Amino acid sequence: MRAVKHILLLISMVIISNSMTTLKEETPPTETHSKSVLVIHGGAGTILRENMTNEKDKAYRDQLEKVLRSGMKALKEGKTSVETVELVIQLMEDSPLFNAGKGAVFNHKGEQEMDASIMNGADLNAGAVSGVQHIKNPITAARMVMEKSKHVMLSGQGAEDFAKEQEIELVDPKYFYDDRRYRQLKSAIKRTQVELDHDGKESTKPVDKEDGKQGSLWSKESEKFGTVGAVALDYKGNLAAGTSTGGMTNKQYGRIGDSPIIGAGTYANNKTCAVSCTGHGEFFIRNVVAYDVAAIMDYQNKPLKEAAEYVVNTKLKEQAASGGLIALDAKGNVAMPFNTKGMYRGVIYEDGRIEVKIYEEE
Amino acid sequence: MRAVKHILLLISMVIISNSMTTLKEETPPTETHSKSVLVIHGGAGTILRENMTNEKDKAYRDQLEKVLRSGMKALKEGKTSVETVELVIQLMEDSPLFNAGKGAVFNHKGEQEMDASIMNGADLNAGAVSGVQHIKNPITAARMVMEKSKHVMLSGQGAEDFAKEQEIELVDPKYFYDDRRYRQLKSAIKRTQVELDHDGKESTKPVDKEDGKQGSLWSKESEKFGTVGAVALDYKGNLAAGTSTGGMTNKQYGRIGDSPIIGAGTYANNKTCAVSCTGHGEFFIRNVVAYDVAAIMDYQNKPLKEAAEYVVNTKLKEQAASGGLIALDAKGNVAMPFNTKGMYRGVIYEDGRIEVKIYEEE
Repeated sequence: MRAVKHILLLISMVIISNSMTTLKEETPPTETHSKSVLVIHGGAGTILRENMTNEKDKAYRDQLEKVLRSGMKALKEGKTSVETVELVIQLMEDSPLFNAGKGAVFNHKGEQEMDASIMNGADLNAGAVSGVQHIKNPITAARMVMEKSKHVMLSGQGAEDFAKEQEIELVDPKYFYDDRRYRQLKSAIKRTQVELDHDGKESTKPVDKEDGKQGSLWSKESEKFGTVGAVALDYKGNLAAGTSTGGMTNKQYGRIGDSPIIGAGTYANNKTCAVSCTGHGEFFIRNVVAYDVAAIMDYQNKPLKEAAEYVVNTKLKEQAASGGLIALDAKGNVAMPFNTKGMYRGVIYEDGRIEVKIYEEE
Repeated sequence: MRAVKHILLLISMVIISNSMTTLKEETPPTETHSKSVLVIHGGAGTILRENMTNEKDKAYRDQLEKVLRSGMKALKEGKTSVETVELVIQLMEDSPLFNAGKGAVFNHKGEQEMDASIMNGADLNAGAVSGVQHIKNPITAARMVMEKSKHVMLSGQGAEDFAKEQEIELVDPKYFYDDRRYRQLKSAIKRTQVELDHDGKESTKPVDKEDGKQGSLWSKESEKFGTVGAVALDYKGNLAAGTSTGGMTNKQYGRIGDSPIIGAGTYANNKTCAVSCTGHGEFFIRNVVAYDVAAIMDYQNKPLKEAAEYVVNTKLKEQAASGGLIALDAKGNVAMPFNTKGMYRGVIYEDGRIEVKIYEEE
C-alpha cells in the first residue's frame, strides 16, 4: 500500500509538472496593455552622433515629435489606425528630411520613383503602389488601392491613372525635386555604385559639405536607409501598418524594393502585430521580414519583442543585411529593433508618454 | 485498494495518452526520400471533366507530361534546380495553352502585361519582373535579375531595359497575341467584371463556342487561374521555385498579382520547401501564402503536406480565396493542394514515376 502511495505520488508529480510545462508554453510573458499607441520610423542606417550637427539632430527630433503628437491627437479624436497611419506618413512624405514623397531620392535616370503600402490588421485588406512619379502622397494612393479597387498592388502609369480617377492630388515631378538629393545622385553615379536611400554622406558630414568628393569614405556600412513608416493601434484595438519610400539613390529604373510589398516591408494582423520595415530592401524581400515577425508570434507563440529581435538581430544579421523595423501588437507592446548605427524612431502612448530616438546608444 | 487501482489505471492512461500526443506532435510522419523531383502546375480553377472536350483534356495532359519529361531529363543530366525551373517554365510560357508568355491574357487596355519570379533555395537569392510586354520568356528575365543585378524586382520599362542589356530575347507584343484570349477580354469587358487569368468559359465550354454570350453562367466559382509554376529538387539536394503569369483578364493596367512577389507567389529555402502558387492573387499576397507554408514547417515543425494543406484548405478557404499551390521539400516530399474544382498539375521522380492530373477527383 505504501509502495502504491509512492507510485501514485510520483505519477501525480509527473502529471503536474507536465501540465505546468504546457501552461508555460501556452501563456506568453505578461506584457502591459496600453490603449492607443503610435510608432513611427524615418529610416535606419549609419547615423552617428559625432557626424550630426546640432541643428540637424534637432530638426529630425522636432519633426518626429510633431508627427507623433499629430498622430496621437487623431487617435484620441477617434480616428482609426488606418487613417492615422495614412496621416502620419503623409506628414513625413511632405517633409524633405525623409526619403519619401518630397525629398525622395533619384534613380539612375535622374527621376524620382516612389513606392508605398498600407495594411489593415482588422481584415487583412491591403493596398500598394510602386514606381509612381506624380502622386503627392503615395501612401494615400496605397490606401485608395486598398479601399477602392479589387487589387492590392498597382504600379507605374496604371497606378497613376487610378489615382487620377480617385481624385488624389497629382503634382508635377518638380514638386519632389530636392537639390541635396540630386547632388547625392551625381555623386553616386561618379562612384558607379548603387546607394541605399539617403546618401550616407548626409549622415557622416553636415549637409553643406556634401560635395561628392568623399566617395572613398563610403562602404556598405556607411549606407543609410531612408524609408518612412508607421504602425498604430486605435481605441477599437485595431492595428494598421504603412510604409513609404523613394527607394535607393541611383537605383535601376523600375526597381521595386520591400516597401510596397505586403509581407516584406509592411504587414498587419490584429491576431499578431503590425510591422513597417526600413533597410536593404532586397534582403527584406527575400526574408519576407514583416510577415516573419508575425509568423514567429503566431506559430511559436513568442512575444512581440522576442520575435522582432530575432528577425532583425539574428536572421538578418547572419546575412549581413542592414536595417530595422518598428512593430506593435494589439496589447500595445512596442519593438523597434535595428542592426545599423541608428534609426530615426519614436513612439507615443495615449497617456502622454513620448520617446524620440536617433542613435543606437539611446 | 480496488478504488486505488482504478485511479492508478486512469492516471496511467492519461499519462500514456498525453505522451502519445506529445510524440505525435514532435515526430513528423516518416516520409520517403527521393533524389531529383520536379513538380509543375498550369493553373487552378473551375476545371470540370464534363465541360472538357476529349481533345482539350488530352492536349493539356500531353503538354504537362512533355514538360515534366524534359525537366527530368535536364535534372538527370546534372542541371541545377534553378536551371530546370527556368527551362520548364519557358516551355509552358511558349505554349498557348497556359496563361503565361504566349497565351497570356489581356488587361483592360487590351495589352498583355506579364509577371514572373524565381527563387534559389540554396542561398535565398531571388529575382522577379512585373508588367513586361516584350520579353519572350519572363522567367528568364527573372533569373537574370536574380543572377546579374543587385535587385530582386524590376518592373515595366526598367525591367525591359535590363533584359535588353542582358541580351534576353525580346519580341513584338504581337508574338503574345492569341485570338481566344482577345475574345475573352471583349467578353469580360461586356460583363464589366474583372476575370481571373484564363477565361472560365474556356473550361466550361469548348473553345469554338466562346462567343461571349454566356456571361450569365459566370460566377466567382467559375473563375479559373492560369498561372504556371514549377518547383524542383536537384541531385545536390537544392530546391528552387518559379512562377510566371499573364495575370487576370481585364485587370487594371499596372496591376501586380502574387506571381512576381517573393513570399506570396514564389518561395524556396532548402531548410523548408519550394512553393509556387496559382489563384486569386490579391488573397495570396495578403496571406503571404508561399512563405507561410515554409514558416509553418520551420516554426511548428510540421511536415510539408500538413503545412500546405492547412494554408490552402483552412486559411485560404476561410477567406473564400480560391487557388492552389505546388510544394516540394528537400527530402522529395510533394504536396499539390487546391481548393478549386481542378488544377493542371504533375510530378515526375527520378525513378521514372510520373503523375499528371487535372480534376479534383483524380
